Amino acid sequence: MEELRVTGGGHLGPIDSSRIPRYAGAATFARLPRLDQVDRADVAVVGVPFDSGVSYRPGARFGGNHIREASRLLRPYNPALDVSPFERVQVADAGDMAVNPFNILEAIETVQQNALDLTADGTRLVTLGGDHTIALPLLRAAAERAGSPVAMLHFDAHLDTWDTYFGAEYTHGTPFRRAVEEGILDTEAISHVGTRGPLYGVRDLEDDRRFGFGIVTSSDVYRQGVDEVVDKLRARIGNRPLYVSVDIDVLDPAHAPGTGTPEAGGITSRELLEILRGLRGLNLVGADVVEVAPAYDHAELTGVAASHVAYDLVTLMADTLTPASEDK
Amino acid sequence: MEELRVTGGGHLGPIDSSRIPRYAGAATFARLPRLDQVDRADVAVVGVPFDSGVSYRPGARFGGNHIREASRLLRPYNPALDVSPFERVQVADAGDMAVNPFNILEAIETVQQNALDLTADGTRLVTLGGDHTIALPLLRAAAERAGSPVAMLHFDAHLDTWDTYFGAEYTHGTPFRRAVEEGILDTEAISHVGTRGPLYGVRDLEDDRRFGFGIVTSSDVYRQGVDEVVDKLRARIGNRPLYVSVDIDVLDPAHAPGTGTPEAGGITSRELLEILRGLRGLNLVGADVVEVAPAYDHAELTGVAASHVAYDLVTLMADTLTPASEDK
Amino acid sequence: MEELRVTGGGHLGPIDSSRIPRYAGAATFARLPRLDQVDRADVAVVGVPFDSGVSYRPGARFGGNHIREASRLLRPYNPALDVSPFERVQVADAGDMAVNPFNILEAIETVQQNALDLTADGTRLVTLGGDHTIALPLLRAAAERAGSPVAMLHFDAHLDTWDTYFGAEYTHGTPFRRAVEEGILDTEAISHVGTRGPLYGVRDLEDDRRFGFGIVTSSDVYRQGVDEVVDKLRARIGNRPLYVSVDIDVLDPAHAPGTGTPEAGGITSRELLEILRGLRGLNLVGADVVEVAPAYDHAELTGVAASHVAYDLVTLMADTLTPASEDK
Amino acid sequence: MEELRVTGGGHLGPIDSSRIPRYAGAATFARLPRLDQVDRADVAVVGVPFDSGVSYRPGARFGGNHIREASRLLRPYNPALDVSPFERVQVADAGDMAVNPFNILEAIETVQQNALDLTADGTRLVTLGGDHTIALPLLRAAAERAGSPVAMLHFDAHLDTWDTYFGAEYTHGTPFRRAVEEGILDTEAISHVGTRGPLYGVRDLEDDRRFGFGIVTSSDVYRQGVDEVVDKLRARIGNRPLYVSVDIDVLDPAHAPGTGTPEAGGITSRELLEILRGLRGLNLVGADVVEVAPAYDHAELTGVAASHVAYDLVTLMADTLTPASEDK
Amino acid sequence: MEELRVTGGGHLGPIDSSRIPRYAGAATFARLPRLDQVDRADVAVVGVPFDSGVSYRPGARFGGNHIREASRLLRPYNPALDVSPFERVQVADAGDMAVNPFNILEAIETVQQNALDLTADGTRLVTLGGDHTIALPLLRAAAERAGSPVAMLHFDAHLDTWDTYFGAEYTHGTPFRRAVEEGILDTEAISHVGTRGPLYGVRDLEDDRRFGFGIVTSSDVYRQGVDEVVDKLRARIGNRPLYVSVDIDVLDPAHAPGTGTPEAGGITSRELLEILRGLRGLNLVGADVVEVAPAYDHAELTGVAASHVAYDLVTLMADTLTPASEDK
Amino acid sequence: MEELRVTGGGHLGPIDSSRIPRYAGAATFARLPRLDQVDRADVAVVGVPFDSGVSYRPGARFGGNHIREASRLLRPYNPALDVSPFERVQVADAGDMAVNPFNILEAIETVQQNALDLTADGTRLVTLGGDHTIALPLLRAAAERAGSPVAMLHFDAHLDTWDTYFGAEYTHGTPFRRAVEEGILDTEAISHVGTRGPLYGVRDLEDDRRFGFGIVTSSDVYRQGVDEVVDKLRARIGNRPLYVSVDIDVLDPAHAPGTGTPEAGGITSRELLEILRGLRGLNLVGADVVEVAPAYDHAELTGVAASHVAYDLVTLMADTLTPASEDK
Repeated sequence: MEELRVTGGGHLGPIDSSRIPRYAGAATFARLPRLDQVDRADVAVVGVPFDSGVSYRPGARFGGNHIREASRLLRPYNPALDVSPFERVQVADAGDMAVNPFNILEAIETVQQNALDLTADGTRLVTLGGDHTIALPLLRAAAERAGSPVAMLHFDAHLDTWDTYFGAEYTHGTPFRRAVEEGILDTEAISHVGTRGPLYGVRDLEDDRRFGFGIVTSSDVYRQGVDEVVDKLRARIGNRPLYVSVDIDVLDPAHAPGTGTPEAGGITSRELLEILRGLRGLNLVGADVVEVAPAYDHAELTGVAASHVAYDLVTLMADTLTPASEDK
Repeated sequence: MEELRVTGGGHLGPIDSSRIPRYAGAATFARLPRLDQVDRADVAVVGVPFDSGVSYRPGARFGGNHIREASRLLRPYNPALDVSPFERVQVADAGDMAVNPFNILEAIETVQQNALDLTADGTRLVTLGGDHTIALPLLRAAAERAGSPVAMLHFDAHLDTWDTYFGAEYTHGTPFRRAVEEGILDTEAISHVGTRGPLYGVRDLEDDRRFGFGIVTSSDVYRQGVDEVVDKLRARIGNRPLYVSVDIDVLDPAHAPGTGTPEAGGITSRELLEILRGLRGLNLVGADVVEVAPAYDHAELTGVAASHVAYDLVTLMADTLTPASEDK
Repeated sequence: MEELRVTGGGHLGPIDSSRIPRYAGAATFARLPRLDQVDRADVAVVGVPFDSGVSYRPGARFGGNHIREASRLLRPYNPALDVSPFERVQVADAGDMAVNPFNILEAIETVQQNALDLTADGTRLVTLGGDHTIALPLLRAAAERAGSPVAMLHFDAHLDTWDTYFGAEYTHGTPFRRAVEEGILDTEAISHVGTRGPLYGVRDLEDDRRFGFGIVTSSDVYRQGVDEVVDKLRARIGNRPLYVSVDIDVLDPAHAPGTGTPEAGGITSRELLEILRGLRGLNLVGADVVEVAPAYDHAELTGVAASHVAYDLVTLMADTLTPASEDK
Repeated sequence: MEELRVTGGGHLGPIDSSRIPRYAGAATFARLPRLDQVDRADVAVVGVPFDSGVSYRPGARFGGNHIREASRLLRPYNPALDVSPFERVQVADAGDMAVNPFNILEAIETVQQNALDLTADGTRLVTLGGDHTIALPLLRAAAERAGSPVAMLHFDAHLDTWDTYFGAEYTHGTPFRRAVEEGILDTEAISHVGTRGPLYGVRDLEDDRRFGFGIVTSSDVYRQGVDEVVDKLRARIGNRPLYVSVDIDVLDPAHAPGTGTPEAGGITSRELLEILRGLRGLNLVGADVVEVAPAYDHAELTGVAASHVAYDLVTLMADTLTPASEDK
Repeated sequence: MEELRVTGGGHLGPIDSSRIPRYAGAATFARLPRLDQVDRADVAVVGVPFDSGVSYRPGARFGGNHIREASRLLRPYNPALDVSPFERVQVADAGDMAVNPFNILEAIETVQQNALDLTADGTRLVTLGGDHTIALPLLRAAAERAGSPVAMLHFDAHLDTWDTYFGAEYTHGTPFRRAVEEGILDTEAISHVGTRGPLYGVRDLEDDRRFGFGIVTSSDVYRQGVDEVVDKLRARIGNRPLYVSVDIDVLDPAHAPGTGTPEAGGITSRELLEILRGLRGLNLVGADVVEVAPAYDHAELTGVAASHVAYDLVTLMADTLTPASEDK
Repeated sequence: MEELRVTGGGHLGPIDSSRIPRYAGAATFARLPRLDQVDRADVAVVGVPFDSGVSYRPGARFGGNHIREASRLLRPYNPALDVSPFERVQVADAGDMAVNPFNILEAIETVQQNALDLTADGTRLVTLGGDHTIALPLLRAAAERAGSPVAMLHFDAHLDTWDTYFGAEYTHGTPFRRAVEEGILDTEAISHVGTRGPLYGVRDLEDDRRFGFGIVTSSDVYRQGVDEVVDKLRARIGNRPLYVSVDIDVLDPAHAPGTGTPEAGGITSRELLEILRGLRGLNLVGADVVEVAPAYDHAELTGVAASHVAYDLVTLMADTLTPASEDK
């Protein structure tokens, strides 16, 4: 009984909310068509329900569908960037990857393979986690598709460049150390944004710096303001292929209680969105929004923030892709 | 990426949970196929996201999808009735009806028309509300398909046979008075079960009795036990076409906090399921589960109860329909 | 803008819910008139926002108003007892006593004096706590008005006959020991109902028995059923003036999470209401419902149960009082 | 048992919290007298429990009483503006309007008529919603009392100048388009503040601009700071009669989870209060605080924010009215 | 600053709650001494914070400490069994096992080894989970200590005798199939209690029966009553060494919302405690309480139920052990 | 089974989280050793579970343990100050004081005596409340140990310099008026930070000023920024012995819902932490974090903020103490 709208751009757009209430029907991201309903997507939103890599509160396995539920309120025109992303290009929801919760290595492989399959035809992915472990296979796929190491912006309270935990090399605290070791990150252009909170030791920072990471702390965002932060980040990235990884715990727990390892003193959702919008025009080849743990959320607070983040990431991608049609 | 399983009965069954985790993918009821994925359904589960008829706490517009989320845990074999309903017949999720929240009369008409459309080919409906207003158009459709007034079992804390409220004839407190007036209920065989709580006056009871309703109070269920209750109900119903309407507030608020007009002293979810299972073999032509208001639920408590109720209703329907194949 | 209805009995009744929605206006108990709106009340519901006597979770200071909010759903006819209490006698809401949170002894004195003032003209009180400390001054007032020690039914998970705690004699764990010592209880006719959970030692039981208390445990209610329990309780009470004190934690935490010292294995709200209704005809001179701590409640679950308990207590009182008018 | 204090200004003020605890007694706004307890009010706070105009999460029908509960903590002196509003003028709580939940048009008429009745004698209203639909009849009454179209500041994440939804002209998304069409807004002096989030299309903005609205986005508040924002707003308003409408979703969901259509990236409660205080001296003739949906609130977070907003609006009104007495 | 009391039995007992408030200090189980504070324990309560074996909602890693928090209210005398367990024998809290969350096989080994270490000197364990995966290594240790396969009572909504899930043999759905295969269960005396809810197929039941399990469904508990159930269970067990495994989801979600795979229609906490008490005198050699997931709990509802279950299990063990001293 | 790590500084440090998961074991502050596990502590974190001095929402008696639970995520290196506090000096958790909930005066005396005992050997205290009443005895002890009145920074939405409430002199609204009267504060160097919200009258401000307090309002923090605020505060304090008292309600309710008297318009957790870090090098002799009421918290949001505040306070103390060893 649901009807998808053909947009001005000739693409299959989201369900028409003036005829079918926003709370009705299945929750694809932004009420967009499923991938199987379109020929091919320029941008696909895909879920990875996996949280076996967490070291504290689990639950991010439910994160993707939680973000989708919260995304029912998204409308098709993004005034902050003056873009109608779903008109400009074909965006679709690719559903969830089927990932083994009992075997981290197999899970990582599944994610990598699925990401490669989904991007075989040039589709760009915005992935909804899941815990941060999944950034590693997503980066592998992004680098493979880019044909080179990729630049990265990593929004997170934490560095996620630790080495092992309980002897495990692949967890949500280690993806970017692994990625550097694997040579899939362009270490000239990788930065953490929103970092804060205690560490194990000063060596955590030393290691991180050695890997090439720049750090814009949450305090920096407060003191410098988003425009200065954006300028610095852009200068580093240039026109490299860019992957953006957003751990929702980059937000203050007030803005994102529904996450696994909250740290006080975080940035606001407004600051995060402003910084993301400042990335306009960069060559965004892949992105993720991870660590949304709905059991700790309240009134979809975290889900709404994450859905706006994902929506802006989709918009940024759509904005730089050659549109099928320019009128909107 | 989701794969539906062909069941022993040759029908398209739910997603295989040993390969795709229960928390992955879109939430159709019991992870069953969408109606558009099967040729024809013997039984369809459909949602009616509508709550503009409520007199106290709204929110049941989110009820159907909440029940679907909670139904991810349902498995395909019902040991209480020794039936594998999804093998026995084709069951599918028909999605949500697109109902106008701003116009009750139009909404009622939409539900009626949609229900007639969905049942045109003999499909039987288990409807997920939504508030109790929708029982009226569903009964109209059921009676039209049955070709006669239908028997009804009405599980509810309340009578729902009031007349008007603020001058409005069609609300969640009036569907069964209207249904009696319209002649679509077989007044020899209509009963409330689980009734309790204060009324406006003794006249509420007198009116209700005059309409033909029998009452099994929540106290009766406690004192007589479910078997005696079942015997009485079955004796009244006989082999008439039967519609079962379950307002989730029939359960004690401990078992169903997520509802709009809770009343203490209710029945347990075990009692409700036991009574429903006692209806085995009756000619169940339609059913609904209504008044689940997720904003007041906790940990999907109410959603899980409602999903089990819906599952048993589907099983009862499947059990009496001629199966496509007997082996399971 | 609110309009109170004159009932068939000539009394000022609750607000007419068919014209003014239940969620509108200030929350007096059952939407009844305030005491200052009527000449005199036969039964008054009064709040005591006090919880400085608790030994574990505080918060019952908010209990009375929470019960009033939950009581918006109460209607004027009690079918379980076939009585319209607000028609039969004048019932009003006397508001809250102004009790000092920083001085337990002064608080107890205030409650006692207020209770005496309110009952000077024959009014009977149903008091909404607050913690159980307040039962002592309420019993003092009840005994003074009765002109004799009173019989008591005490619904509670706990005995509340402990001696001192941190040297304090007057707390929510000691009111009934103090009451026995003060000679205001008729020790031939005092019983605990719903008792369960661990004690400090066997001596707790021995002391309690020595004071004269009978015990009907939660297990007894399960094994004997409410009718047998009611028979035993009535046999003990006879026609003595009776005070009923209901600590909401007599209910299982599933039915009353919003309380300070929850114990598993409790009775259901249905059992509690059935037992209360079994007290019909007894000479109920005073009652309280205490220990509702809203910060721990969910969806007004506990508030609804408490409001039904208070409503049945009011009905029992109204039922035995000489009505102003018999027609209803 | 409650005692109201006569303030220095000769008015009946709030209950004395040093003698009657803040959590005791009925919850009028700021514990002020009811309108029936005073001869006449200079400023009245009134509730409109109505939410049948919402397009997503309902529940604002409980908003007014929720704000009142949260307002128990308000004290009588506003240091931010150095005004004791309840001394300066008579402020009272006018209770709730009795609004039909089943008929939007009748509801709008009731609100308009009630507002006219309440303001017949020069009383100014601060209205507690309810959903934003009610702003239309409140503006009609304000314009009628002002004898001219009124200026308006509209704090909201959304524009609320959409046209129809499901064919309905009067919903919570359309009041200001209707108001412009009806000629009751002074289109030289109308502004949205706090706007953000996706729209249906660029035409939403074009329509809005055509109606005369200025927009101060949430991003603008971040980048310009409240003082610059205030200067711009004041310049536009001048000495026109001003209506201020505050949809609580103007706040970030972190500050106001309890609302129906949350959008990330909002302003903080501190920014909102600072902007409101910047309006000092303007001719504030009416105001509302709407869209508080308690079922989604936590720990009265949203209610506290809304109560402070309403308190500052009352203070602004009191500040410009001729006081009965200047000493405080 | 905390002081432990020497009990009448000469053992180190819990902290004295009349001098140190229950909410003060660290939360050992029932405020008992830590294992390092006593020479040797007859019974030890130990936690296993592990939930990497779950197939749906994770979070039971926090279960043990949640139960401990809720156990602050436990007092030292168990009137239902007339035993003061902490006087009769030495009971202590052994803290938590340090279990690897990223490697299920290593985790199982750790639990087994820790359990063997803790029981080397005859100590009996009541283990607080954690998910049900841990029952397997605990059973291995119990059988090794018993020198023979053990009888088992398994309280659970589910059978937990599935084979594999995503290729994994060791998960929370498979421990008892593995245990049968390993020959550590006495298949003459193993029963499920409280079973309910849908299964994958009739074969689930056939397999289960073949392994030797008896089933007492939740429906059976309702229809037969706890005494009849207890008689049947005892008859099967005789004087065999008995292990009791309690998955908290055996309770209805109303009584235990805080769990990972809730099923409607469960038993009440009163029924569960009554059945456990009916096991008095049996040779209880080990026990666990698992699957408490605090993120889904409310007001410690589930924690309180689980703490009472653990307390009764400790009491049953203490009751059959040779006491150090008989007076209490 | 827990193992404490010897830090580089030769002190006993927190449990090693790479071997024992953060969620395992008892929750001492930051997983530090108990005071009884070390010879002597340079800094001790101690709890005061007491809330009998509150005038609105109680529950802070559970605050200390809630902060400890939330502190499991703290790591040993503080990058914002480039200090490893647990290496630099010995820090330990001193457990909870045993405070009488039924007698405020006795409670105050207990806290004072315990604080003196704990600091007899030069240990500095960071105290976890409890309500703000406890600041008075803690200040008494701090002044006695300092041998002079102390400077104070008081972070709070409120002044807490009221006189009496219900005749009580010692409550959570009065500690600093009493402290000034007792001469234990250096009135040249006392400031409130984060003040906001309505007062009883302008006299509240006049009294406060007369006592010597400076005020940095929440609005000031917004307009001046943290650096300017820090400069002013430092200028006032100089090298005086300094006590810092943090009422968590200084944070906006978005950042700290779990408190008793929330006020909108507060500072962010980032601002609070930035200001605290600005105090580096000052002579911090004592500190508290109070008014955390977990029953109103969500997802440990407030607990996490409070734990970070306490961690920074410990770091500031450690930073100025002569370290046992400089290498870290």
